[in-house]
Amino acid sequence: MLTPDENTHWMQLALEQASKGVGTTSPNPPVGAVIVKDGKVIGKGWHQKAGAPHAEREAIADALQQHPQEALNGASIYVTLEPCSSHGRTPPCTEGILATGITRVVYGSQDPNPKHAGAAKTIMQSAGLEVHSGVHRGECDKLIRPFTKVQKTGLPWVILKSAISLDGKTTRPPGEGQWLSSSESRQLVQNLRYQSDAIITGGNTLRVDNPSLTLRPSNPSNKEQPWRMIITRGKKEALPQHCQLFSDEHANRTLVQEQGDIISALKTLANKGCNSVLVEAGGTLMAAFLREAHADELVVFYAPMLTGGDDLGFGELAPEVDLEEQQFTRIGSDIMLRATIKKTNSPQLAYPESLHKM
Amino acid sequence: MLTPDENTHWMQLALEQASKGVGTTSPNPPVGAVIVKDGKVIGKGWHQKAGAPHAEREAIADALQQHPQEALNGASIYVTLEPCSSHGRTPPCTEGILATGITRVVYGSQDPNPKHAGAAKTIMQSAGLEVHSGVHRGECDKLIRPFTKVQKTGLPWVILKSAISLDGKTTRPPGEGQWLSSSESRQLVQNLRYQSDAIITGGNTLRVDNPSLTLRPSNPSNKEQPWRMIITRGKKEALPQHCQLFSDEHANRTLVQEQGDIISALKTLANKGCNSVLVEAGGTLMAAFLREAHADELVVFYAPMLTGGDDLGFGELAPEVDLEEQQFTRIGSDIMLRATIKKTNSPQLAYPESLHKM
Repeated sequence: MLTPDENTHWMQLALEQASKGVGTTSPNPPVGAVIVKDGKVIGKGWHQKAGAPHAEREAIADALQQHPQEALNGASIYVTLEPCSSHGRTPPCTEGILATGITRVVYGSQDPNPKHAGAAKTIMQSAGLEVHSGVHRGECDKLIRPFTKVQKTGLPWVILKSAISLDGKTTRPPGEGQWLSSSESRQLVQNLRYQSDAIITGGNTLRVDNPSLTLRPSNPSNKEQPWRMIITRGKKEALPQHCQLFSDEHANRTLVQEQGDIISALKTLANKGCNSVLVEAGGTLMAAFLREAHADELVVFYAPMLTGGDDLGFGELAPEVDLEEQQFTRIGSDIMLRATIKKTNSPQLAYPESLHKM
Repeated sequence: MLTPDENTHWMQLALEQASKGVGTTSPNPPVGAVIVKDGKVIGKGWHQKAGAPHAEREAIADALQQHPQEALNGASIYVTLEPCSSHGRTPPCTEGILATGITRVVYGSQDPNPKHAGAAKTIMQSAGLEVHSGVHRGECDKLIRPFTKVQKTGLPWVILKSAISLDGKTTRPPGEGQWLSSSESRQLVQNLRYQSDAIITGGNTLRVDNPSLTLRPSNPSNKEQPWRMIITRGKKEALPQHCQLFSDEHANRTLVQEQGDIISALKTLANKGCNSVLVEAGGTLMAAFLREAHADELVVFYAPMLTGGDDLGFGELAPEVDLEEQQFTRIGSDIMLRATIKKTNSPQLAYPESLHKM
């Protein structure tokens, strides 16, 4: 029996492994695993992308590359998520673990799919393994929130990215330059895009800013460009066809949702395998996401200036929203707030389908 | 000859002394002094309030209380501001220094009054003393900015205090409680009031909030309550006469300025000896201070929430304003921004008198 401190230590290592996959695993969640024997890590791995081996199999392969098969006898495996127990694009990890001689399995989150939740535990306990579940569940659950949301609601996790001046504007007046001047802030937005499967913008932002919404210039793991979804209140034909999203080399990654229909746009993206989407749009579309309770997280850059402009910003459009898990971070000359949106009910329960159309 | 490092060290100590007087010295500036002999502080002091001894005399008295008169022979005195050379409510400090045997005078800021600037230097050099001016002038000048502004413009230094939500509001909807819930933020506002000679509010805030605008509950140096100036667009008679500002025990410290006349209100306060005033008001009056270029500094508490209210905040009323010296500080669960307002011209030059009426 290991102490809680030892469990913490090994699960932290598994979480570190898992975090390497954030942004590339959808529609799967990021998962990490470490194999421990006699107080030492003998194998580790993380899930890199859908279709590639799961974290448990990566860790087992890593162990076998460095050690003889016998090294796994009596070892423990720490996994951030309950091992899969059914055949998907790869065979079940429970089988992989049982084949090794590993005698102890410690995992954090339960499988969010109610059909599979706890199934691995039963299988492995029946085979005589020692199984501990829910170890550091809070952190493990947080890591797979986007996956969990898709599993439970059919809609991806939505992060709103915005900036706000001291006079409450979200953009500068035309011709006054961009919001985020520090290179640190620009890099951070790139990281957010990298961790997202799609970027949503509005027809108005398309007309005014003609953004590219791509990963640039560095894309460490050669990740496929995120989907770019334009939500417009009008028709696709009314959008400027010469803009970058329709004409650049990634034009095949651009989607359009008409009639300002947020929920249809989100369903489309979930069906394309998106777990996590980033909204980079003006106040009107942002406020609509908030009103319709589709936003899960907010990233706001505070710009220490008064613009004197007449941009409405969120204006009178935003509902009352309480935030939790607020984290303030100094980013170059800016302050970034990252927080989750407090919900009393799931959007499905609180907002009947008929309300989801703008 | 002392090294720059030694000068820095002693002037920092003098600045620490001076900072003890911030909030209580008006219409005088805060000033600090230390007397150094053979690498040791032999006396220190700060100006506590108008009519009380100046910092130099406090430091000399402190030295003489601990040492024989001879200890001052050949000593150095570090003062944050050029010693006074004319008779005010107390005799000139130049005389006090010359009477001691001090042979070296190091000061930071020059006297902002052009009639006296540099006069002390000439007097003391003529008497054979070694005089260094402008040592750590930046920090020393910053400490006396409010005094300097009054000397040069006849108007006090104005700090706008505000809060802003993520939807750009400066207040919560009625019945939703106060902005700043953390006790740390409330304490910080108390500190700002303590460092101010007057608090300005608007007629509307008076009607809606009925604030007391007093120092409470602790008032470490028994400072007199700051003046409370109500700027109303209408007549005094139209204000609610039962409100705290007219009926509490400090009612004799309440002033009213009619017709929204900011410059007259500021002149009135300067004439009452105020160097520094704090504006705690709604967006409309705040924006008027900005438009008329009377604001010097901004203190904003970022409230990480969306109110969903219809308060206009600064709304479309505020002009474009660039800030400098931005400092972000975590205060309990809030982030505070403190910054000075960048000015291209002095308000006198940029805004002719006729524009100062609302």
